[in-house]
Amino acid sequence: MGAVDPYYAFKWVDGSDLECAGYLSVLDQRLLPHKLHYLDLTEYCQVADAIRDMVVRGAPAIGAVAAYGYVLGLRQGESADQVYRTLCASRPTAVNLQWALDRLRALHEPDWKRLLAHVHGMVAHEREVNKRIAENGAKEILAYWNKRSGKGSSRTLHVLHHCNTGTLATAGGGTALGVIRSLHALHKNLVVHVNETRPRLQGARLTCWELSQWGIPHELSVDAVAPLLMAQGRVDIVTVGADRIAADGSTANKVGTYMCAVSAQYHNVPFFVCAPCNTIDLKTPTGAEILIEQRSATEVLNPLEGPPETWFAPQQTSVYNPAFDITPPELITGGIVTEVGIIRLRTSDDPAPSIAEQLQRLELGHAHHTAI
Amino acid sequence: MGAVDPYYAFKWVDGSDLECAGYLSVLDQRLLPHKLHYLDLTEYCQVADAIRDMVVRGAPAIGAVAAYGYVLGLRQGESADQVYRTLCASRPTAVNLQWALDRLRALHEPDWKRLLAHVHGMVAHEREVNKRIAENGAKEILAYWNKRSGKGSSRTLHVLHHCNTGTLATAGGGTALGVIRSLHALHKNLVVHVNETRPRLQGARLTCWELSQWGIPHELSVDAVAPLLMAQGRVDIVTVGADRIAADGSTANKVGTYMCAVSAQYHNVPFFVCAPCNTIDLKTPTGAEILIEQRSATEVLNPLEGPPETWFAPQQTSVYNPAFDITPPELITGGIVTEVGIIRLRTSDDPAPSIAEQLQRLELGHAHHTAI
Repeated sequence: MGAVDPYYAFKWVDGSDLECAGYLSVLDQRLLPHKLHYLDLTEYCQVADAIRDMVVRGAPAIGAVAAYGYVLGLRQGESADQVYRTLCASRPTAVNLQWALDRLRALHEPDWKRLLAHVHGMVAHEREVNKRIAENGAKEILAYWNKRSGKGSSRTLHVLHHCNTGTLATAGGGTALGVIRSLHALHKNLVVHVNETRPRLQGARLTCWELSQWGIPHELSVDAVAPLLMAQGRVDIVTVGADRIAADGSTANKVGTYMCAVSAQYHNVPFFVCAPCNTIDLKTPTGAEILIEQRSATEVLNPLEGPPETWFAPQQTSVYNPAFDITPPELITGGIVTEVGIIRLRTSDDPAPSIAEQLQRLELGHAHHTAI
Repeated sequence: MGAVDPYYAFKWVDGSDLECAGYLSVLDQRLLPHKLHYLDLTEYCQVADAIRDMVVRGAPAIGAVAAYGYVLGLRQGESADQVYRTLCASRPTAVNLQWALDRLRALHEPDWKRLLAHVHGMVAHEREVNKRIAENGAKEILAYWNKRSGKGSSRTLHVLHHCNTGTLATAGGGTALGVIRSLHALHKNLVVHVNETRPRLQGARLTCWELSQWGIPHELSVDAVAPLLMAQGRVDIVTVGADRIAADGSTANKVGTYMCAVSAQYHNVPFFVCAPCNTIDLKTPTGAEILIEQRSATEVLNPLEGPPETWFAPQQTSVYNPAFDITPPELITGGIVTEVGIIRLRTSDDPAPSIAEQLQRLELGHAHHTAI
């Protein structure tokens, strides 16, 4: 789906001759929605900076960009270990980043051009994965909606979305926003309630912009309005992405996700996490083991990087600014939408099999299905 | 308590001679925390503008300022009805505003100087009311805390506060923040977690500033962090103010209050509303009858009133921007702290008497107590 968009989050640009060996073009998302500006990165440290400074963000996009960064590092003649460590440290919570780099390092491939071809393959695979997440999620949600409102009902479906999980956040058409896009193609009468997503406003800046590019009706609110919308009966489902999912289903995602989940449960609104299987980290048993990245006070106090008189609070104010929060499995009532199918979470009434078992079963089914 | 502060929200300044008949000095809270700037208002329309544009905000402060505006209108020779209507329309949700104006109009006093003396009396009374709310709330919360953590325990008491309810918001020392200030005087080991309170950032701009003036330790977060703090066990109680309380206890307050209340219940954290009795509107049976004021999209999209490239989302984005939300009585688990005592809310386990009955009983006790 990303192909028809007039923008991309990142793209490898091949060199024209032996002098120019190619570079990674990355959209500077800090300037959106006001300016489409691409940065050309030729060194791995530039890539690490771009990830740390949130030029690029969104777990799957970070993984892909870091993979290209690894290629650039080897092309520079740096040691694989040094490149690996620098890139891993740029966003410690993003498991896709480490996953992508682990895979690359395990190849022990000294030829950067062959590695580059491999990364191209990884990215093409991610596109396919996104497409399947979108299809699986749209099918699941539509089935739920038809059951609730009567098949073929044209009643408006209200979807709440937190942060940004679209083309900008991934290597393809998006995770939760990809699901919403596919859902909109099947059920035109749909409205997305967009949380602005403080402190960095990815909802306001990026999701509203992507939805307007795609022609999907949407309405923006400050984050704390979400529970009010639910109380008013104006939210039918919640969809979010994930930065890391523990073996028990606990999901680390942009701060504010937990708020949506607590409120969704209180109002009996199904809550869906949409993420590729490589976001699931079976080596992390529960949410308690997920390190929550702490970010700077100035992100909260001075989001526009303006002069002192525009700061949101006195400059010396102490700030708690976690990048993520953890949503426990019992609040993920809709399930986890992956490329191989829907994973159900254990609840007290319904002891579903473990996520590892479900993944194995779904992957087998998926392999069987794609083999035919 | 307000007397020792190096600032005030509003003050009547007497004229020095017959030419200058006095004026209302109002702190322009839109410029805080960066600038202490007072506006001198001599006409009732200026007062209505100041209320609408949030030069002054906070339900009790609005009521007092509107009362002075009424005096100014009569001094200008305007009809009482015209002045009443204009001032009432400046913030339709604020019940204290209408309450103050109703009381003044009922006096049928044509002499503005006598009316002014009356308003001075109302404001002095409000100061006393704030003082009693602060005392009652601090006593109640300390009793809870001593019961929970052991009497005399020096364990840090973590209080979550939404919006601003201090000297800036009231005619005196504040409601919920007044309670926190009195509590801090009794139990030094206290930390306030301040919600920034989007869209207008009263928490970040005003509450952090007031708490730093008062020397009370505090930490700022974006609003959606509040449930995470609760999950981490870092919130012992929640205190908020109120703009209007219906006869069943449903409380209209700054948007985001409901989020705090839903989350507090999920985490078993007591939730207190602190407000003067005149915030309770027994003529409004339930929360469903409270009109929620809708405010402009630009408050959300462009809080700093900056140039187009600093807007938080594409300029044409549709925005839902309610000023308030409604918290139902079953979530107000700590009770309503008033100047006459604590009102308990009905729960399914504990069918407390109606608020009207409790108010009557508390007011009788209070009158008896103050008579002795």
